[in-house]
Amino acid sequence: MTRVGVLGAAGYGGVDFIRMALLHPELELTYLAGNTTVGKKLSDVYPFLVGTCDLVIEETSLEVAAEKADLLVFALPHATATNMVRQALSMGKPVIDFSADFRLKKASEYRDHYQEHPCPELLTQSVYGLPELHRSSISKTDLVAVPGCYPTGAILALAPAVRSDLIDTSTVIVDSKSGVSGAGRTKLTLGTHFAEVNESTHAYAVAQHRHTPEIEQELSGLGSATQVTFTPHLVPINRGILSTCYATLKKPMTAAEVLDAYQDMYAKEPFIRVLAEGELPRTKDTTGSNRCHVGIVVDERNGRLIAVSAIDNLTKGLAGAAMQCLNLVCSYPETMGLEFPGMWP
Amino acid sequence: MTRVGVLGAAGYGGVDFIRMALLHPELELTYLAGNTTVGKKLSDVYPFLVGTCDLVIEETSLEVAAEKADLLVFALPHATATNMVRQALSMGKPVIDFSADFRLKKASEYRDHYQEHPCPELLTQSVYGLPELHRSSISKTDLVAVPGCYPTGAILALAPAVRSDLIDTSTVIVDSKSGVSGAGRTKLTLGTHFAEVNESTHAYAVAQHRHTPEIEQELSGLGSATQVTFTPHLVPINRGILSTCYATLKKPMTAAEVLDAYQDMYAKEPFIRVLAEGELPRTKDTTGSNRCHVGIVVDERNGRLIAVSAIDNLTKGLAGAAMQCLNLVCSYPETMGLEFPGMWP
Amino acid sequence: MTRVGVLGAAGYGGVDFIRMALLHPELELTYLAGNTTVGKKLSDVYPFLVGTCDLVIEETSLEVAAEKADLLVFALPHATATNMVRQALSMGKPVIDFSADFRLKKASEYRDHYQEHPCPELLTQSVYGLPELHRSSISKTDLVAVPGCYPTGAILALAPAVRSDLIDTSTVIVDSKSGVSGAGRTKLTLGTHFAEVNESTHAYAVAQHRHTPEIEQELSGLGSATQVTFTPHLVPINRGILSTCYATLKKPMTAAEVLDAYQDMYAKEPFIRVLAEGELPRTKDTTGSNRCHVGIVVDERNGRLIAVSAIDNLTKGLAGAAMQCLNLVCSYPETMGLEFPGMWP
Amino acid sequence: MTRVGVLGAAGYGGVDFIRMALLHPELELTYLAGNTTVGKKLSDVYPFLVGTCDLVIEETSLEVAAEKADLLVFALPHATATNMVRQALSMGKPVIDFSADFRLKKASEYRDHYQEHPCPELLTQSVYGLPELHRSSISKTDLVAVPGCYPTGAILALAPAVRSDLIDTSTVIVDSKSGVSGAGRTKLTLGTHFAEVNESTHAYAVAQHRHTPEIEQELSGLGSATQVTFTPHLVPINRGILSTCYATLKKPMTAAEVLDAYQDMYAKEPFIRVLAEGELPRTKDTTGSNRCHVGIVVDERNGRLIAVSAIDNLTKGLAGAAMQCLNLVCSYPETMGLEFPGMWP
Repeated sequence: MTRVGVLGAAGYGGVDFIRMALLHPELELTYLAGNTTVGKKLSDVYPFLVGTCDLVIEETSLEVAAEKADLLVFALPHATATNMVRQALSMGKPVIDFSADFRLKKASEYRDHYQEHPCPELLTQSVYGLPELHRSSISKTDLVAVPGCYPTGAILALAPAVRSDLIDTSTVIVDSKSGVSGAGRTKLTLGTHFAEVNESTHAYAVAQHRHTPEIEQELSGLGSATQVTFTPHLVPINRGILSTCYATLKKPMTAAEVLDAYQDMYAKEPFIRVLAEGELPRTKDTTGSNRCHVGIVVDERNGRLIAVSAIDNLTKGLAGAAMQCLNLVCSYPETMGLEFPGMWP
Repeated sequence: MTRVGVLGAAGYGGVDFIRMALLHPELELTYLAGNTTVGKKLSDVYPFLVGTCDLVIEETSLEVAAEKADLLVFALPHATATNMVRQALSMGKPVIDFSADFRLKKASEYRDHYQEHPCPELLTQSVYGLPELHRSSISKTDLVAVPGCYPTGAILALAPAVRSDLIDTSTVIVDSKSGVSGAGRTKLTLGTHFAEVNESTHAYAVAQHRHTPEIEQELSGLGSATQVTFTPHLVPINRGILSTCYATLKKPMTAAEVLDAYQDMYAKEPFIRVLAEGELPRTKDTTGSNRCHVGIVVDERNGRLIAVSAIDNLTKGLAGAAMQCLNLVCSYPETMGLEFPGMWP
Repeated sequence: MTRVGVLGAAGYGGVDFIRMALLHPELELTYLAGNTTVGKKLSDVYPFLVGTCDLVIEETSLEVAAEKADLLVFALPHATATNMVRQALSMGKPVIDFSADFRLKKASEYRDHYQEHPCPELLTQSVYGLPELHRSSISKTDLVAVPGCYPTGAILALAPAVRSDLIDTSTVIVDSKSGVSGAGRTKLTLGTHFAEVNESTHAYAVAQHRHTPEIEQELSGLGSATQVTFTPHLVPINRGILSTCYATLKKPMTAAEVLDAYQDMYAKEPFIRVLAEGELPRTKDTTGSNRCHVGIVVDERNGRLIAVSAIDNLTKGLAGAAMQCLNLVCSYPETMGLEFPGMWP
Repeated sequence: MTRVGVLGAAGYGGVDFIRMALLHPELELTYLAGNTTVGKKLSDVYPFLVGTCDLVIEETSLEVAAEKADLLVFALPHATATNMVRQALSMGKPVIDFSADFRLKKASEYRDHYQEHPCPELLTQSVYGLPELHRSSISKTDLVAVPGCYPTGAILALAPAVRSDLIDTSTVIVDSKSGVSGAGRTKLTLGTHFAEVNESTHAYAVAQHRHTPEIEQELSGLGSATQVTFTPHLVPINRGILSTCYATLKKPMTAAEVLDAYQDMYAKEPFIRVLAEGELPRTKDTTGSNRCHVGIVVDERNGRLIAVSAIDNLTKGLAGAAMQCLNLVCSYPETMGLEFPGMWP
């Protein structure tokens, strides 16, 4: 049994982690910390948890957290908890961090896209929390950097192609469509105001989104140096990211041949499903679950691979991946607490 | 361990039952039957189940069903399986039936709203599957008639008021708002065509919906004879029913006094939550879970009670209620397999 | 030709008025005032107007407004512009006011639901801007109080029944379902945050909404004193209000007989359509247009009338009604600028 | 004044044309033909037209059409009306055709993507109805082939770049996101069933959609031979197509330099708006209007142009373009009847 504390419990990421922790037979939630919600029950903030999680949200205190919990989940925005993470580690508490703070291996990349890094020494210690790429390292670390939601979809769509050297890694384009929950719950902006985004779709932060270096770092780690043009879009759904990825094939291949490379890499993965030739993923098939569906098409006429992945941005794209990593860190079965298959419709 | 067969496995009700059965530690799905989907894996029809339920859908055969399963769930439209249910019972198999066939106690009511009843003798044997009203009888029966989705919402909203004799039962109005999944998956009509129903809301079957006699039967069973005006509406969401119920109070009361009656009846119910004074339920707080949230307001100026309930039409309104009843029939803990708290957003 | 100034041009109500003013052959927009948007083109705030309304939003100044415009539209929240309205009138400028400030005839009702009224003397001068009830008075006034969106739907649904003395006016219940644009654009709250309201529906402000006295004032003016229980709901659509209204019939009647009363009152109304027996309105049939569709059902079993109306909350419920009144005030054909029939889907 | 007949009046394309024709001062609708809707008023099929278009839908008869109308709009699926179009032309009636039948200049391309062409001789006579490319020819023809919705978005996004020779035309990728109305109203499929598509997004027909040759034909006509990888997606909105287009720049350029080419081509276009640097289009900004918004980003790091266009798939993508062409054919001002600026939200 592991006692778990969640800092930033009342955000969408935190609460999605908590709904899975409640079903996990080896976890006990012992500490929830918040900011504007301190003093309320979590179930007052989120009535769907009435009767299943009536814990009171406490003020953020690392001392209390360390006393009450064996492992800490930081579900906070980047640059908010960097120093607390360092302290937690020094107190011997393993950390699962949702922010961007420990994902990039180069402090200079972090500076370019975020700010000066306050604890660059931790960047070598942290492990990028994508078990499909770093399972062994995750199981040995005490600092997991949970990947960004967009990078998870893009990397899982393209990893087998890069790893098997099928594509020209200078031609990669990632066109992603995200649900609105990706913007979180705390900041209320016109961009998430119902009447503004409903019945519309648009691109944003084209070719300059901060998730770009994550995608490039991880794909480059699998083969040739990879550079991507990344275009995120907003679609009016609550949850889900569809990533449509394009790259030029190094040589003519059939879809069946490409699928072999995907099956080679993913056949034993508990949460990745490679779809049969001719099938393409839908985001709703992964809603609420930790699964990722990947389908591919070969455009033989133009010598291009189109690889499409679907995930739930809050689950496999954040809180589910966190749980999967926690299981590895704590030596629990990797799928524990993640059995919920989603639902339809 | 109970081996369960589901007939009509590929409808929305069937598959919602199955996603919960997969998490139920004492159930084993051993037989799935369908119609247009025979020969396919359930996960081919519903890719969200890939890797968790890859059973093949078989042709409907009561012999095979009886051989493979200890208990049968009929997730079929009314008047489709009445005779099969009779046979199943005669073969000693308990039945959980999703249709309207065994809900109404009077064959004449069934005839008025559906057709001549083929097995009226079963109507005394069947139990209306609302555990909050008939827990003890359900645990002793082998034929459970799962309530209609609208009646579940309406009855749970009003039951304490009728039972405690707070309202004039000739003044009851039920104004319900349902998600589109209530129309099922099999019949494709203009009324469920995305572009037609999206961004719109409307009433239908006003004062003549077939769920009306169910509501009246069950409320009348709790106190004075009750007659309702029932108005269903369609709202463009996938899941959920909000039932806003109106009735004249017999004498002036405060909200606190009314809430006492609700707490009296529901305080120990595992799936019903009576909201505090001033709070009102939202359908999304119950999405995917077997919960029902009930809130009330007293309009003191007009001497009226407004009771509002929220449920997921497919879960507490159908498949979850079925599982709750199955647990009672099989003497499992009533909440087994129903722990999923939903999710947000 | 009338030169029109709009104060509060960048709210949803203001901009919906403007899109119709652009198509009105006798109106010229000469002054737009805003608050946080001052200095921007309206088309920068609302790119759908690029090329059709590139006017710059100015600071609010009654002097400038009076100089540039012959008639002023105040599209501002209640209690914001009351004194400016008084000044405008004293400068001889007719006023169309979107707020609640001049709707209630009794200053005490305004105080009970809003605050102490700063200019109670104007309440006798102002006319409630529902042409179907007050056409003649509107055409003679210089101060039109545009009705609230909910009252418009409720009053139009019930007016013929009250006017023809068909119903017991102590039994009226109004159950309304509104799109989210009704909450406006300026205040960003969790209650209008996409991921919170999407895929959900709920009631709010039950039996205490400030639109209640408006409904009662106007219906009472048509016949017996009317008291209503009013329950607003939010549904996840951009535009539209469906009002489902219930009342006990004074004596048994058929739907055809009730429809006669509705046809009597509405047959010549340019924007009201009484649906044939058996038909019920859908909000989307009125989206973007100034129309109101009304359908009725008689629940003969319970002696009740159910009258349902559909409007676009921003158009017939606000800006379209304002234009209809402006046409009357300015002696233009009542339908001028309001010809857009909506669209489907 | 031109008398217009619409064949296929009750489809989404037909009715969108009709709502604009009703506002067109020089058009009179004199003949509406349908199939399953014959004998009904159009306003019975589409209640939003009650009071504005109560014409009765007639059986399809070219003789009657030719007698009653001066110009015929064929709003029918491909290969349905090819011969009727030929007859209409021989009777001296100009034709605006919504289908794919006369868009492709090469009969072999039509055969490859549709079927053997029944009237290949008309392919030289017909003009591709994109005024921004073929204004002069359209004004002289009597057979306009209205472009496909996807091609309109893709071509308008890329035309200036191809025309000014800015991009390598072998690197073009078009990633489009369409609303569900693009699937029409006639065929009811699981793929347009509300509960299936709501809250989800997916790609389909990747690299094999029949609109691909149209895009290639028109772009190639502007400069170098162009080959595209085209990926359509479905998003749960009623109307709108966002086309995100990628191509490698021939040499390093700034966004400002690229925008010059776009302004060169589009500055005087009545319905195209080139957005300022840093701005990107949203589909809802064009909903219901005949406008197209185009924004571009240069990914300098990767030497790529990203051009994004937004249109309403039913209006600029179909019925609005048809009206724009009709105006040219009939020598009316090009914007007549197309003044509706859309609305927000």
